Amino acid sequence: MRPVAVLGIGQTAVGEHWERSLRDLATQAGLAAMRDAGLEHVQAVFVGNMLSGLLTRQENLGALVADWLGQRPAEAFKVEAACASGAAAFRVAHMAVSSGEVDVALAVGVEKMTDTTSGETTAALATASDADYELVHGVTFVGLNALVMRRYLHEFGWKHTDFAPFSINAHANGARNPNARLQEPISERDYTRARMVCDPINLLDASPIGDGAAAAVLVPAERAYDRPRARVLVAGSASATDTLAVHDRKDPLFLSAAHHSARKAYAQAGLEPSQIDFFELHDAFSIMSALSLEACGFAERGQGPRLGLEGRIRLQQALPISTQGGLKARGHPVGATGMYQLVEVVQQLRGEAGPNQLDRARVGMAQNIGGSGAMIATHILRVA
Amino acid sequence: MRPVAVLGIGQTAVGEHWERSLRDLATQAGLAAMRDAGLEHVQAVFVGNMLSGLLTRQENLGALVADWLGQRPAEAFKVEAACASGAAAFRVAHMAVSSGEVDVALAVGVEKMTDTTSGETTAALATASDADYELVHGVTFVGLNALVMRRYLHEFGWKHTDFAPFSINAHANGARNPNARLQEPISERDYTRARMVCDPINLLDASPIGDGAAAAVLVPAERAYDRPRARVLVAGSASATDTLAVHDRKDPLFLSAAHHSARKAYAQAGLEPSQIDFFELHDAFSIMSALSLEACGFAERGQGPRLGLEGRIRLQQALPISTQGGLKARGHPVGATGMYQLVEVVQQLRGEAGPNQLDRARVGMAQNIGGSGAMIATHILRVA
Repeated sequence: MRPVAVLGIGQTAVGEHWERSLRDLATQAGLAAMRDAGLEHVQAVFVGNMLSGLLTRQENLGALVADWLGQRPAEAFKVEAACASGAAAFRVAHMAVSSGEVDVALAVGVEKMTDTTSGETTAALATASDADYELVHGVTFVGLNALVMRRYLHEFGWKHTDFAPFSINAHANGARNPNARLQEPISERDYTRARMVCDPINLLDASPIGDGAAAAVLVPAERAYDRPRARVLVAGSASATDTLAVHDRKDPLFLSAAHHSARKAYAQAGLEPSQIDFFELHDAFSIMSALSLEACGFAERGQGPRLGLEGRIRLQQALPISTQGGLKARGHPVGATGMYQLVEVVQQLRGEAGPNQLDRARVGMAQNIGGSGAMIATHILRVA
Repeated sequence: MRPVAVLGIGQTAVGEHWERSLRDLATQAGLAAMRDAGLEHVQAVFVGNMLSGLLTRQENLGALVADWLGQRPAEAFKVEAACASGAAAFRVAHMAVSSGEVDVALAVGVEKMTDTTSGETTAALATASDADYELVHGVTFVGLNALVMRRYLHEFGWKHTDFAPFSINAHANGARNPNARLQEPISERDYTRARMVCDPINLLDASPIGDGAAAAVLVPAERAYDRPRARVLVAGSASATDTLAVHDRKDPLFLSAAHHSARKAYAQAGLEPSQIDFFELHDAFSIMSALSLEACGFAERGQGPRLGLEGRIRLQQALPISTQGGLKARGHPVGATGMYQLVEVVQQLRGEAGPNQLDRARVGMAQNIGGSGAMIATHILRVA
């Protein structure tokens, strides 16, 4: 297995892009990543996407995107793992390059969610849950997360407001990210007064959907590199699975797939959690921030909210998270989200994170969650 | 890149499995492949599937299948490339093992197509075409293939009946395959009198859809092997793309993605077309058999039907094709088809092809086509 580097990154802003189609978004991000890498050709294009069939009536997305990028006859297909589709596409690109079968791979995450009614989009998102044992009862994704959060509050004795720091931090960072969907800071008062969506999850616990695309060019680390900016290596790349249905888990408050994939990524990188400088986690709902921090070894079981309350998740603190706004403020174009996280890690490592730049950013971690924890991919990137 | 072997194979019969769900079919084929490999655990599960979101309201299929196979927390996700999803999943499994990142990978192709109306299924299949430039005009997949066949007949001066040998051969072989959807031989009279579907494609030019799953276990070739039967190596694994829309191609009668992927696979295997003993091609429509044979170097441009008319495609002849019935008679459960082809190649190489066993089967090729030629994967397998 040969080591892999990220040579280029690109992204569109997350928003309601009624003026741009699915293929336009993917092409824009892909070309940006290739331009950033200084390359006009790639050998393979792996597209992370969840909903193109349901919301755009378009499958065979790999070939479509490769063509619109001008990359025919490059190898290309779509990779799907619900909201973890983006990181799954990056995983495939990583394996393609690490195997030696491909020398230049492009991973693109793309999603187009706002051209349909919110009912259609909600129903489409529910296909990430177990169709026969969850979906059939009419439970939505917010509903599943609300059940988990309710149980967590009960089990560990936290109040709803103890989760406020996660959302406040994400919005503070998103306010300084020009690609974020929500660019307004929020206060604790805003958080506690936000409209209820599905008790105990209110509007400021939940991430907004959106249209968007993000992309990265992967090459062998041995490839000559002559840029002035830092070179970024993939130090750990792993994914793991859990049951699709939440009720099938022995412990619904532990993200075992996060635990397994993070442990594997740490081992590959030869690092401990304490050596991770920042963490782009999957804050689709604020409860997920707590569970992710715990499963990855940054907090004891049931103690995730403490990191927020102690201010340790903010920029320049012990473990900055959601440094460009996270899913909560940058937005959650589901199949693209994992790629946004990885692009943001690269921005930090290169010192290109603008007003959100961290002083210490040598090792960054990204974690992308598909479904309510069924498929979780963890990547560790570091400056070479 | 380390060489890869196929250690186990499994399949369900192709049919209308109203008694079995999507997950049941995938599990049945996956467990059969693991049993055949003598393994109870795999590290990764890659699921090839096209339509689970549209027809079963189920995405996140990788995690679901891994769980039902008892393989949690194995890495798992879905790979989609329209009708080439099966071979694309095998491609990912190949890269996973060849990279050294995974030591035992399971590729499963699965599709469930008969629980919905034929209108729903036809509309879902159309998502493999270009949604904005083909689908929007109401053209179906049969329609696109009919346009291509009509042009081919005009351009090269063949009659419709010249394609009869492709269907007759497939049905003759399918009649002896207990897993085939259609197990009745057909005559030339049947072929010429078959009901017209979309002129010039009649019912016996077209493959039947179906429910089904097929699977294979991939391991490093260096792994110790103590079975009495032949060991099967992956000698070539490649895929390539063309435009999604047929009208965007300079030459709609040439499968350039078949040409590119086959050329790459030949180079990897160090073989010429003349050294391929048999060929499981993608006979979704009889015109595709001709185009595939031409693009892969088995026939001159415009001369594909000649191989059928001269009887060279039949069992024990120069280049047997569709040896277990092909898509035409074994059936075409779209996302599973590519895996059926690969499983059938392994059956032949091992001498386990039953009444359809070839005398000479040392090197076999499988080619899986997604869309009307937009994504094509070619694999060459050989006896070690």
